[in-house]
Amino acid sequence: MGYMHKYLDVDLTSGKIHEKKLDPELAEKFIGGKGLGAKILYDELKPGIDPLGPENIILFMTGPLTGTSVVTSGRWCIVTKSPHTGIYLDSQIGGKFGHRLKKAGYDYILVRGRAKNLCYLYVSPDGSTLISAKEVWQRGTFETEEILKGKHPKSEVACIGPAGEKLVTYANVMTDKSHMAGRGGAGAVMGSKNLKAVVVSGNEVIDAVHDDFNELTRTFRTKVQNDDGVKNRNRIGTMMWVNMSNEGGFLPTRNYQSGVFEDADAISGETMLENYTYANRACYGCLIACGKANKFETGKYAGLDVDGPEYESTALLGSNCGIKDLGAVAKASELCDDLGLDTITTGATISFAIECIEKGYLEQSDVENLVFGNDEAILEVIKLISKRKGFGELLAKGSKAAAKEIGHDSMDFAIQVKGNELAGVEPRGSWGMALAYSTADRGACHQRTWTPSAELRGDLKRFSFEGVPKFVKESQDERAACFSLVVCDFLPFGVQEMVEMLNSATGFSYTPESYLETGERIWNLTRMFNTREGITSGDDILPERFFKDVMPDGDAKGLVVNRDQFEAAKLEYYKLREWDDKGIPTERKLKKLGL
Amino acid sequence: MGYMHKYLDVDLTSGKIHEKKLDPELAEKFIGGKGLGAKILYDELKPGIDPLGPENIILFMTGPLTGTSVVTSGRWCIVTKSPHTGIYLDSQIGGKFGHRLKKAGYDYILVRGRAKNLCYLYVSPDGSTLISAKEVWQRGTFETEEILKGKHPKSEVACIGPAGEKLVTYANVMTDKSHMAGRGGAGAVMGSKNLKAVVVSGNEVIDAVHDDFNELTRTFRTKVQNDDGVKNRNRIGTMMWVNMSNEGGFLPTRNYQSGVFEDADAISGETMLENYTYANRACYGCLIACGKANKFETGKYAGLDVDGPEYESTALLGSNCGIKDLGAVAKASELCDDLGLDTITTGATISFAIECIEKGYLEQSDVENLVFGNDEAILEVIKLISKRKGFGELLAKGSKAAAKEIGHDSMDFAIQVKGNELAGVEPRGSWGMALAYSTADRGACHQRTWTPSAELRGDLKRFSFEGVPKFVKESQDERAACFSLVVCDFLPFGVQEMVEMLNSATGFSYTPESYLETGERIWNLTRMFNTREGITSGDDILPERFFKDVMPDGDAKGLVVNRDQFEAAKLEYYKLREWDDKGIPTERKLKKLGL
Repeated sequence: MGYMHKYLDVDLTSGKIHEKKLDPELAEKFIGGKGLGAKILYDELKPGIDPLGPENIILFMTGPLTGTSVVTSGRWCIVTKSPHTGIYLDSQIGGKFGHRLKKAGYDYILVRGRAKNLCYLYVSPDGSTLISAKEVWQRGTFETEEILKGKHPKSEVACIGPAGEKLVTYANVMTDKSHMAGRGGAGAVMGSKNLKAVVVSGNEVIDAVHDDFNELTRTFRTKVQNDDGVKNRNRIGTMMWVNMSNEGGFLPTRNYQSGVFEDADAISGETMLENYTYANRACYGCLIACGKANKFETGKYAGLDVDGPEYESTALLGSNCGIKDLGAVAKASELCDDLGLDTITTGATISFAIECIEKGYLEQSDVENLVFGNDEAILEVIKLISKRKGFGELLAKGSKAAAKEIGHDSMDFAIQVKGNELAGVEPRGSWGMALAYSTADRGACHQRTWTPSAELRGDLKRFSFEGVPKFVKESQDERAACFSLVVCDFLPFGVQEMVEMLNSATGFSYTPESYLETGERIWNLTRMFNTREGITSGDDILPERFFKDVMPDGDAKGLVVNRDQFEAAKLEYYKLREWDDKGIPTERKLKKLGL
Repeated sequence: MGYMHKYLDVDLTSGKIHEKKLDPELAEKFIGGKGLGAKILYDELKPGIDPLGPENIILFMTGPLTGTSVVTSGRWCIVTKSPHTGIYLDSQIGGKFGHRLKKAGYDYILVRGRAKNLCYLYVSPDGSTLISAKEVWQRGTFETEEILKGKHPKSEVACIGPAGEKLVTYANVMTDKSHMAGRGGAGAVMGSKNLKAVVVSGNEVIDAVHDDFNELTRTFRTKVQNDDGVKNRNRIGTMMWVNMSNEGGFLPTRNYQSGVFEDADAISGETMLENYTYANRACYGCLIACGKANKFETGKYAGLDVDGPEYESTALLGSNCGIKDLGAVAKASELCDDLGLDTITTGATISFAIECIEKGYLEQSDVENLVFGNDEAILEVIKLISKRKGFGELLAKGSKAAAKEIGHDSMDFAIQVKGNELAGVEPRGSWGMALAYSTADRGACHQRTWTPSAELRGDLKRFSFEGVPKFVKESQDERAACFSLVVCDFLPFGVQEMVEMLNSATGFSYTPESYLETGERIWNLTRMFNTREGITSGDDILPERFFKDVMPDGDAKGLVVNRDQFEAAKLEYYKLREWDDKGIPTERKLKKLGL
């Protein structure tokens, strides 16, 4: 219980769909979601396979808490080998798809192979089938979802847009209009398999083992309702970070040339709230309801009615592209969602291209006047990327691959780690994120560790690595477990509450210690996956910009990330993890973790 | 401007669709929405026509503020002759259909005649057409909307459910899942015309005449944001009234036998908020966002994830049916929405039937144990009503028509005025509503005047008609204008703001006085419509129960509505309106109003 005890194994090459039993021992050892997905991925894939080949698999995962009465139980995730980085990828996502997948009777879906023609997978308790997706070929994600819901009322849809079909390596999987399985290109994996969408339907009962489960979650619900952080998320959402990051000097600006954007307030959460926000948006059953619906009445984008943008999209498509019109940011974010493009990587790659143009390394050909701050040109480039046309073909592989082609010293300011672009925190202004980005398991990521709150509160010393290795390690482990339950990282619970919910739902006997050890087990497993793909300590590194170019403004003015201190912190982090100096997990450690 | 200057004239009999010009003089004189709709209805219809015959028309109306930057500009309305009452009907409704209709390029749609086969009307700037609705025949409104949106992505849908197709006289038109054009059976009119749905699509620009329009609405937006009443609506919505009505002694209970429900708290807004609410729901661009999404985790209705219920549905399907399980109320409300039934009339008619069974006037045949408090039996009856099967056939005409068949003294406790059932305020506990219900233009209605707030605040003396005629008259006029703009009655604005917005959008030169006079003009016009149908002062009356049966409990314990005082108040009301003693507008008055 907590589990549905079944999964679907779908072979697109043969067209065969098999219902199989969930392995109860694996479920107990890796929980679900990220953890179980990582284990399956590790076991199923041979090293070195092409992420866009039929030998890759893609996993649509729920966890034991998905679809239950736990707040944020709308979360689910996708696990696959990333075509953007060539390493492990899990993408955490919300909306309403997760609970419906579970109510279709399955803990997860494993998809392998490649279909001959574009199709979608329909899953229900009464049977599952592959159906031609001709009708939605090259359609945007908004339309695709509407059309497939029309054909299958009372269902939920996860789909790709034109970008995924065109194998843009940072194409997202989208659901519930504006929710994304982002970063790393899960959408391109679906595209490579000729799988346009997964449609799930059903109303099976999700049981908990213990009778007190609902009472427990009701108590926790009250805790969530009364939490000040939650109230703030409900009020302003992730957009609170625009002004906070700018004031802290770490708001990515003009391809991370600065951490201070002179027009930050114009694209801030406060400005959004005062002028545009009219309602909250929530994932399935989530009372945090951090999403914001915005309507723009004036200016160039008058008439725009849109869910979002979120903070990371605003940082990368806004300040990092020099855009100071929140309507333009919202439009760009909506366009990415509809085309099925990752907003972070899209913004980062375009800003990288603009700097290359400024430096004379790159000729702009298809777009007029592609400079920082030109929203129209940037919207045009987004469309070209989704089509891989002209200029868009180069940028459709992301900044690392583009830098390789462009040459000169452009790799120094291609702002990525292991091929994945950095998110909305500039590391010279937040040294904690320097280590967090460098060591995250899917390339640069803000969701495995988030240090800015601790740095602004003073729990971590700013511009220092003191205490950072321990902080990063512990939060990576904790998040790995949290993403296996699957719940949201915005849930204001400690490990104790997570363990109580997990045990009550499943009947397991987890302790806070064994729960965190499971997180550690999962983290080591994803590292082993990456090690197997050739990742070593040399890849746990920041772009040169942050070690060489002095920050021109703000709290971090005059600073770079100290390279020696960074390397020392990294070694300390390896030591805490009981990995060797090359960042490879030791035999002893793996044995201890039961790997 | 403000207007699109065009409307569609659709003749279902011939299948011809004509685009016609909006009459600018009529628009200035009757504004739009309710006012303009009433004028067209009055001019188009001959007295005495069958509301369910092809000679009836149905109007889908927007107003000059619909779809603009004004808060609550998502509102629109339907105007027709009611098959439930045989008199004038306008139904105010929210969701997202109104702004899209206007962006399709039309101020309103007039539909006449009857189609040979079930069809739907598709409207867009590129052309409009009638399409077979075979595929959605007898489908619920939720599925119908999903299916038609799938066929026409980026559109909005207003549709009827099985109840409308079966001509249940209180069938609603539904949009955006849980938004209803309620009361009076606009859904049955669509059903009688074989019109399953109207689908609107388009992105035409809605202009305002004055350049300062958006600045004006932005200022007003801040006012809305800072309004305490709005904050409360955003927090708890209409459900705040369950406990307030019960404490005031006017919560309809067991077919209005009492105004106090011993289990009110169990179905209250506070209980809902604490246990079930996870997010707000908003109409297009509305930052009041008074709707609530609820998820039920435990009890009989565990798994239910639903928008609503609202207060009126809770009063009528809950306390008035003796139901104390909020999950059951939410389920009943959702079922009514999906079947396309009015929740108020459904709840009132079922509770009336239960009392008839208790008294031995009626035999229950198809449902087991139909008694107050039996939620399962009540859910079963709702389904029977929508199918007009067995017991449901009698109840599908509402309580007045059923009482006529049942006989005995059942008409005394058929809780309706002019055929329309009373809403969620018991008149012995709220004498203001006694006059409001009796004189409302579509039969008993809570939206033309709402006295409970003034009574609880002490602005109106309780259990007295002192000041009530003036209060009722003035708010009827004000609401008539407000419903012509069209905006929501939850907008916390005075006449001054309404006039400023109207003038800025349209270029008119309304003053507060001429605006209220327009409201009065519209009110007199709807009265003339009803007079023409035979309505006189004898119809402006409450059910006998409220004059004869002493209230058993609460603030109004021991009271009835004083009949003499009521009649005196009615005469005073007529006098204020410059109507004669029979409630007929005088020639002089009509002339003064330009009618």
